[in-house]
Amino acid sequence: MPNLFDENLSFLDKIDSPDDLKRIDGKHMDKLCGEIRDFLISNVSVTGGHLASNLGVVELSVALHRVFCTPKDHIIWDVGHQSYVHKVLTGRRTAFNTLRKPGGLSGFEKRSESVHDCFGTGHSSTSLSAAIGIATADKLNGKHDSFTIAVVGDGAFTGGMIHEALNNCDPTLKLIIILNENEMSISKNIGHFAKNLSKLRLSRGYGRTKRFTRRAISRIPLLGKSLFNLFKNTKKIIKNALYKSNYFEDMGLYYIGPLDGNDYSQVEAALLNAKEQGENVIIHIKTKKGKGYKPAESDPSAYHSMPPASKASSSNGATFSEMFGKKLTDLAQTNTKICAITAAMCDGTGLNPFKDKFPDRFFDVGIAEPHALTFAAGLAAEGMKPFAAIYSTFLQRGYDNIIHDIALQYLPVTLCIDRAGLNAADGATHHGIFDVAFLSQIPGMTIYAPVSEKALERALEEAVESDSPCAIRYASGREDKAVIDAFYKDYKDTPLGIRTESDAVLEPDLLIITYGRVVKEALKAKEMLKEEGMKANIVLLEKLKPYDETAKKISPYMPRPYGSVIFLEEEIRAGGMGMLLSDEMSRCGMLDGYSFSILALDDNFAIPERDENIYETAGVSAENIICEYKRIAK
Amino acid sequence: MPNLFDENLSFLDKIDSPDDLKRIDGKHMDKLCGEIRDFLISNVSVTGGHLASNLGVVELSVALHRVFCTPKDHIIWDVGHQSYVHKVLTGRRTAFNTLRKPGGLSGFEKRSESVHDCFGTGHSSTSLSAAIGIATADKLNGKHDSFTIAVVGDGAFTGGMIHEALNNCDPTLKLIIILNENEMSISKNIGHFAKNLSKLRLSRGYGRTKRFTRRAISRIPLLGKSLFNLFKNTKKIIKNALYKSNYFEDMGLYYIGPLDGNDYSQVEAALLNAKEQGENVIIHIKTKKGKGYKPAESDPSAYHSMPPASKASSSNGATFSEMFGKKLTDLAQTNTKICAITAAMCDGTGLNPFKDKFPDRFFDVGIAEPHALTFAAGLAAEGMKPFAAIYSTFLQRGYDNIIHDIALQYLPVTLCIDRAGLNAADGATHHGIFDVAFLSQIPGMTIYAPVSEKALERALEEAVESDSPCAIRYASGREDKAVIDAFYKDYKDTPLGIRTESDAVLEPDLLIITYGRVVKEALKAKEMLKEEGMKANIVLLEKLKPYDETAKKISPYMPRPYGSVIFLEEEIRAGGMGMLLSDEMSRCGMLDGYSFSILALDDNFAIPERDENIYETAGVSAENIICEYKRIAK
Repeated sequence: MPNLFDENLSFLDKIDSPDDLKRIDGKHMDKLCGEIRDFLISNVSVTGGHLASNLGVVELSVALHRVFCTPKDHIIWDVGHQSYVHKVLTGRRTAFNTLRKPGGLSGFEKRSESVHDCFGTGHSSTSLSAAIGIATADKLNGKHDSFTIAVVGDGAFTGGMIHEALNNCDPTLKLIIILNENEMSISKNIGHFAKNLSKLRLSRGYGRTKRFTRRAISRIPLLGKSLFNLFKNTKKIIKNALYKSNYFEDMGLYYIGPLDGNDYSQVEAALLNAKEQGENVIIHIKTKKGKGYKPAESDPSAYHSMPPASKASSSNGATFSEMFGKKLTDLAQTNTKICAITAAMCDGTGLNPFKDKFPDRFFDVGIAEPHALTFAAGLAAEGMKPFAAIYSTFLQRGYDNIIHDIALQYLPVTLCIDRAGLNAADGATHHGIFDVAFLSQIPGMTIYAPVSEKALERALEEAVESDSPCAIRYASGREDKAVIDAFYKDYKDTPLGIRTESDAVLEPDLLIITYGRVVKEALKAKEMLKEEGMKANIVLLEKLKPYDETAKKISPYMPRPYGSVIFLEEEIRAGGMGMLLSDEMSRCGMLDGYSFSILALDDNFAIPERDENIYETAGVSAENIICEYKRIAK
Repeated sequence: MPNLFDENLSFLDKIDSPDDLKRIDGKHMDKLCGEIRDFLISNVSVTGGHLASNLGVVELSVALHRVFCTPKDHIIWDVGHQSYVHKVLTGRRTAFNTLRKPGGLSGFEKRSESVHDCFGTGHSSTSLSAAIGIATADKLNGKHDSFTIAVVGDGAFTGGMIHEALNNCDPTLKLIIILNENEMSISKNIGHFAKNLSKLRLSRGYGRTKRFTRRAISRIPLLGKSLFNLFKNTKKIIKNALYKSNYFEDMGLYYIGPLDGNDYSQVEAALLNAKEQGENVIIHIKTKKGKGYKPAESDPSAYHSMPPASKASSSNGATFSEMFGKKLTDLAQTNTKICAITAAMCDGTGLNPFKDKFPDRFFDVGIAEPHALTFAAGLAAEGMKPFAAIYSTFLQRGYDNIIHDIALQYLPVTLCIDRAGLNAADGATHHGIFDVAFLSQIPGMTIYAPVSEKALERALEEAVESDSPCAIRYASGREDKAVIDAFYKDYKDTPLGIRTESDAVLEPDLLIITYGRVVKEALKAKEMLKEEGMKANIVLLEKLKPYDETAKKISPYMPRPYGSVIFLEEEIRAGGMGMLLSDEMSRCGMLDGYSFSILALDDNFAIPERDENIYETAGVSAENIICEYKRIAK
């Protein structure tokens, strides 16, 4: 335990647990919050991560851990990217320099990391459903003194799950919902919900009067509570006559707010008030993203998610997201049917140029992937050409909409799947390792996996011409020079299919079939084998599905008789392209007598996160290819 | 065109299109509605289908087609099971006796069936997203005189997608939302949304006054509209002072209602009013399920979805849903951690006994599968044993919640997947043909596929003991006697794995590996082959995953050297169990030299619907097995 009386230590240095925090005199909280801000700024500028949103919730995080006791009480941070201060205060301060690094702290709440992280997060709008589950379990287990708190940004309210959960808030659970309005989720908030919040802000007198009346009546001893109940209905009528009621009260929540979430004493007072209510409470706070750090305050979007200092300036050329946005904008110039849809990721998916040029055909629907996809299907049903740009991991949320609304009706919606493959820094919740498996199950879906600007552009052109559902998946980052040199030097604008290296040999010892960014590992393996005197060729799949043609196209590139074939993919093995293509090749007898193996992600997707050697850990690196080849070669 | 002056014809007989309907004098509408009710009752009692909900929307359907012009205007029926009257009025009256039959009319809205069906439905809460897409396309295409109407039951409002869509209702789209409150979706509605609707019903004076004021002002010529706009804000302040505002108005909709949806003239007047507004309108109607048919009025649940007359009384024994509900209730007696969760399907999933016996541990969350699953994960995180019973096709809506909230945290939630496999009567939107493929991708998931009561009970027992995610999938219907006789005669209560027939022979010509209800086709094929002098054995998989052990267990039952192995499944081929198991068997060298083939659903899932020979159409019947065997046998 740190020495609380050591004057050389800052307040923050003295906190190794929430108990330490509670021992510090309350009058020092403003100073402590300042120290935490300095700590965040100096650390996150080195490690990378979410700075602006965490600077906004410093007071809230401190107040929560002063008023409540985790792990007895439960705090769930929706999405979880704003849980850094919570981590700092719950024994993870000294490990903070390992944030998002191999073996280090996760950038999100994570059960396996700490008993203070009661539920893992990463995707938006799940916190309240989980909170209801946890609070219900506590109630059933007789833990009546436990509180469950869900901290939800205003952006998360554009997601339908929050509304499903609000409809299920059993009043006996004593849930506390913190609505953290920072007027800016990843892109800006849209729609009627945001407008309603602004209205609430303007009606501040309402909350004040209500709190005063309630407290005044409750203070009358003994009679207080029953008197309060007696007058409740009369009060309601008067209240509704005088003030506008709001959505949350209609949903059965006791509403406190709006209040300044960066004013420590206001936040603490509201939490103490909420704790006393004995019913479900929503506290509506307004915080400033980037609070206390001028560059982040003035451009919070730029400081939403920062790269580590070491990588911040090392990048050249356009990202695949940027290439996508640029090409789609070009295509939309001549084709007036093209529409672009994003689910609160306009920046991330590269759609800013499209938005600026064709605002009428650009749609940011909020963090609402299911709606985004069915909305796109509706557009397509009336003759438009919608392109829905969604990160691979978030597309999982619209799986049924792809089946039920797009594929079943064979509507020409194109899914533009960004961040496909392993995403090391964000970790397990953000890997895009299921899309090929779940999309290739779906009948009638054409799937492309471009790894070069030329191929991405061509895929978009083919999708524009297609009258059926398409998916184009590409990784984060930029073109890989070695990959471009090997496969795209003599590019001709022909339909996408398969490609081989310009220096492919006849009848090699090993054929590596692969797709996507991981092809660079195949190239490394090929070089390593060459040094050992063995010959390998690579077939790069640009178009994954339909794959009945693919097997035939691969046929001329097969290795020498009874040589080896390895399928390599940065994707889940079960139901992935390796299984599908080998099933097809087996049907054609192409694999008879050959050694065949699939290198892909096995049942361990929790493991390869935040790992700079992530391909090695995931078992799909150049070294893994060499080992597997030596194991299976005859 | 029918002769409108033929007095021997009823009004209904004269309607072959919405134009015919418009030609009938408005004073006859009550009589017409009566004729439609008689028509529905006499037809649906023979064909089977959704009776009660369609009887409730007769006046609405007639009024919609009197006031609007499809296909120029668009009507989307949420879920679509209440679109029968719409079908009758849009040229499908004479085909109505083919409802839900092979080659006949679908029980849901379907684009390929009629130009009047603008968007296919089947799953709940999608209509408004599709409507926004369609209306947006019309706007972009300059079709400014088109209206788009979404008819949404109150139950659908428990689904998050409706709220995602409400948040995206661009006011220039002139959408018309019909909120059809029948106070009973499939199970009764739950939660705060339903309570708010009741409140709205009690505030009827509000709607009346608002309509009057608005009309009165608008009637002043020329000045009307601008005067109206001028006074709009002033009016709003007064209105809010006098009446409680409501959620829909907060969402930017002009609210009309509540009104009696079974009073034709009220409904027509409201639609005409909505058409004039030039903004987004929600019309809140209250209808009576089963209206006009006493048995359905008094027990609408029983008449929600009826079997065809020919099948109504032919069933013996408990359904798998009933077996599940009974066994889970038994287990919950001794294990106080067990909880049951349903998404508005308490009846359908067999959970009524559980609900009655353990109301504290039973949760109906509404039509909200994503919430249901994350809520279950929250329960599990705090030590409970949640069992979420969801139909296979609807489980698709929670795909990401299974990955992100359950599997990634390795939480012991059990998915009880009802209606697995092909569901002929309801058609393509209701097939449960993806669950094995999408669940088996997900790391750490144990999957069972019981086909007998004993196996289902054992699977539930194993799930109770498990500390990781489990899925138990079973078809609709009951045990098949032939299957029980072949595989479960000498049942011993041992861990689930694989089973073979009691009369299995050594080294047969053919081994059929299969799971689920379709095993009965394998049994038929075996008999047919026997008559031709060929020997077949069957391996029935009770536990699908993990499957690394399964291959070893199958080994002793392999056919004679270089015989044939057929994997049979009532599930999508791509990424299904056939591919996964054959990949594993190939890794072990078990298939070297053998002929191997998978019979499963290829890329044609739209085809095999409403088909009594559905196994034949889907290519997984006994005859298909024989053909395939003869094709591959060496």
